Amino acid sequence: MSRFLLTASVAALALAAPFAASAQDEATIRMAEQLRDKAMSSNVAMDYVTQLTTRFGPRPAGSHSEQAAAAWAADYLKALGFRNVQIQEFPLVGWERGAESGSIVGANPQPLAIAALGHSPGTPEGGVEAEVVRFTSFEALQAVADGSLAGKIALVDVGQMHAMQDGSGYGPQTRIRGAGPDVAAKKGASAFLIRSVGSDENRLPHTGTTRYVDGKVAIPSFAVSAPDADQIARLITLGQTVRVHLSSTAHVYETRSQNVIADLPGRTRPDEIIVLGSHMDSWDLGTGAIDDGAGGAITIGAAKAIAEAGQRPERTIRVILYGSEEVAQPVVTGNGGGAYLRDQGDKVADHIIAGESDFGADRVFALGLPPGAQGGDFQKIATRVLYPIGVLASPRPETEGGSDIGPLAEAGVPVFGLKQDGTRYFDLHHTANDTLDKIDPAQLNQNVAAWTALVWLIANSDVEFRSTMPKPAQ
Amino acid sequence: MSRFLLTASVAALALAAPFAASAQDEATIRMAEQLRDKAMSSNVAMDYVTQLTTRFGPRPAGSHSEQAAAAWAADYLKALGFRNVQIQEFPLVGWERGAESGSIVGANPQPLAIAALGHSPGTPEGGVEAEVVRFTSFEALQAVADGSLAGKIALVDVGQMHAMQDGSGYGPQTRIRGAGPDVAAKKGASAFLIRSVGSDENRLPHTGTTRYVDGKVAIPSFAVSAPDADQIARLITLGQTVRVHLSSTAHVYETRSQNVIADLPGRTRPDEIIVLGSHMDSWDLGTGAIDDGAGGAITIGAAKAIAEAGQRPERTIRVILYGSEEVAQPVVTGNGGGAYLRDQGDKVADHIIAGESDFGADRVFALGLPPGAQGGDFQKIATRVLYPIGVLASPRPETEGGSDIGPLAEAGVPVFGLKQDGTRYFDLHHTANDTLDKIDPAQLNQNVAAWTALVWLIANSDVEFRSTMPKPAQ
Repeated sequence: MSRFLLTASVAALALAAPFAASAQDEATIRMAEQLRDKAMSSNVAMDYVTQLTTRFGPRPAGSHSEQAAAAWAADYLKALGFRNVQIQEFPLVGWERGAESGSIVGANPQPLAIAALGHSPGTPEGGVEAEVVRFTSFEALQAVADGSLAGKIALVDVGQMHAMQDGSGYGPQTRIRGAGPDVAAKKGASAFLIRSVGSDENRLPHTGTTRYVDGKVAIPSFAVSAPDADQIARLITLGQTVRVHLSSTAHVYETRSQNVIADLPGRTRPDEIIVLGSHMDSWDLGTGAIDDGAGGAITIGAAKAIAEAGQRPERTIRVILYGSEEVAQPVVTGNGGGAYLRDQGDKVADHIIAGESDFGADRVFALGLPPGAQGGDFQKIATRVLYPIGVLASPRPETEGGSDIGPLAEAGVPVFGLKQDGTRYFDLHHTANDTLDKIDPAQLNQNVAAWTALVWLIANSDVEFRSTMPKPAQ
Repeated sequence: MSRFLLTASVAALALAAPFAASAQDEATIRMAEQLRDKAMSSNVAMDYVTQLTTRFGPRPAGSHSEQAAAAWAADYLKALGFRNVQIQEFPLVGWERGAESGSIVGANPQPLAIAALGHSPGTPEGGVEAEVVRFTSFEALQAVADGSLAGKIALVDVGQMHAMQDGSGYGPQTRIRGAGPDVAAKKGASAFLIRSVGSDENRLPHTGTTRYVDGKVAIPSFAVSAPDADQIARLITLGQTVRVHLSSTAHVYETRSQNVIADLPGRTRPDEIIVLGSHMDSWDLGTGAIDDGAGGAITIGAAKAIAEAGQRPERTIRVILYGSEEVAQPVVTGNGGGAYLRDQGDKVADHIIAGESDFGADRVFALGLPPGAQGGDFQKIATRVLYPIGVLASPRPETEGGSDIGPLAEAGVPVFGLKQDGTRYFDLHHTANDTLDKIDPAQLNQNVAAWTALVWLIANSDVEFRSTMPKPAQ
């Protein structure tokens, strides 16, 4: 049966918003709907993320825990019936937090809830103790004279991050987290503090990576929780000099990380690969349930739901659990996405599209497709299938993916995005609070349902996402 | 003017629910209403709790911080115009947390969010390491044979505390916290763990005091956060033996605490004392904003609002910021409430009524009066004045007060209660999250308004709450 036949059911849909031709046949669309509905009550995703986070807890990149979790996940995928399950190792400069503490010192000492930023160096033995100079914008820190913060600790506090459905409050503040330590060091500061990049008011700091300059993070750098940042601000307002003691034994070490790769081989076009990506590593403070155990759960759950459809899809579905997404420092090492790309070589051309789930476990609300597919027939069919579970077409095409599939995207592989509700994501992200209990199983399964239906449509489609991409010159 | 005159405004109110006679004159009622409304936009309460929690941070009983905060508060009260401001010292066995840590050990180690319970002894140097035996009821722990937990750590996890408006989920679980260490020790356990008594799912354990038996807490005892308790439960469900390492340098020390006492002397009947109580000390993990900086803020704010009425009230209003509410161990020392009672001696008879604010900063929803005043004219007038700000009559009379005024109540002083909404109180209570940002200034001022209006009515009333109390034999 031609996939371009305008079927009865699609014709019915077309009454509301007509489109010229179908990219899928009727049976494929109906199966997508059936798989979607069945996935809403699946157990696979919740089982995977429960076992992963419970058995291994935090999984920092390159740690024994990440390695053990990868080995376990490979067995888990084999037991689910995936083929060609491999663990692809790569070298990594790991980072261990060690012991750390922070406090306001003086007549009325107060503990501070702090966490070293990823790849931050430890403090000298005995710690760093100095007056805090507070900046309410990054520009204000940049504006002071080089060397003028000698014997001081720089604190940048631009206020609470705004919670947004699309997470758009995050970017501006992480840029400060990335560039802050180097700028503070140039000004002479002995340590760098940043108000946690997060939208909550818990005494749980948000860690996260910071940028290497000349092969390292310049000075010991820490996130302070929002209430602690507010406390420092109020003490300064009361006219007090705030002196802070910071201690950290954080350090880097040589290790390895790994990607776990598992296929559901295509029936008729096995060399056309659809990548479903997420990452296995987590920050060390929580157990990485929402970041990003959930992503693995969603993509594994979707692929497994498709495997149970009774007929293998035409194209190959590849689940990749990437290693080392969180602490990649490109200057000295790589992340899992880069390692996968390098390993594939010419086979990158076989990757027809890639998607990544790395934004928690809350519901999907929008579908973004590669630019050439935006507004086309495939999008129309896909969003009709996804609409009943609350997913609309994104007004923006998807071009970059995230950290894991980003290297594939840069190498020309089209990407899609199933956009998740991030309203509460940054309450939990990179904190000790990123634990299993924060996952809503119903919303997790809505993700599985969306991925299942979309990937089924892609895997049984003739659509060439590459050919529909605008040419680079355009 | 007779206070028993049924005034026009009261008569109007009486149309809806008639009552026989008024305990207040019309001018007093009108002033109560005016003071109530003015208090809704007061700055005093928020200023006090902001300064207290910012300047001094955590204020454990007997610490330098509690002492310094008491001295500062005395000056603050003098500056507000209070009279007879005194600091009443008393000896105390203090407790310091020191350093502590907990982790699951084995092939995949995981950190645990734990906090020693108040007055728990430290562990031996090097810590305690043993298999966890988990009990889902206190009765199950009590039922095992003495000595049968030798070389084990006992964990009692009766599930999440339910959030209730009246906080009624708390009592049953704190009884386990209090009695658990002794029972676990009798069974041979080397340490006692309890799922945090709290209604949240943050990785922030809830500390709290535990009971002395034979002059001490028997074994090192800790609260684990709810997500950590869940993690242990899941590991056991997966068939794993969960071994835990616990370390604590907690210890007791001889110190002193103090009550801060300040009067607004009565104009015509200064020897009739109305006590407005709260406590100055806090747990060491947070800054004691809701427990109980808010209580001081509310009672000081109310007394100050009354002081600004233009005419001093007839009876004396006494604000008491009690020391050492949290860690009182009656066997070895006392709390501020007991110290105050002992110091008063025969003057206890002058205390006509006492109220305590120690349940956070969320809104008051009910007024409880002494049994004899329940349903009487005073209650009717008071609840009519409080109704517009959302306060109804409590169906239960108030008989016990809380920890601070409890000793007065036991000595026969009638007590009242302005019942606060505790729905989110136990999300924060006794955790690092008890910080200023958790106070909603509008709800704090609704408390001030309720206290202001009620205390104004009491202070300008002939009502003898003692004489309306049922006789002990009844």
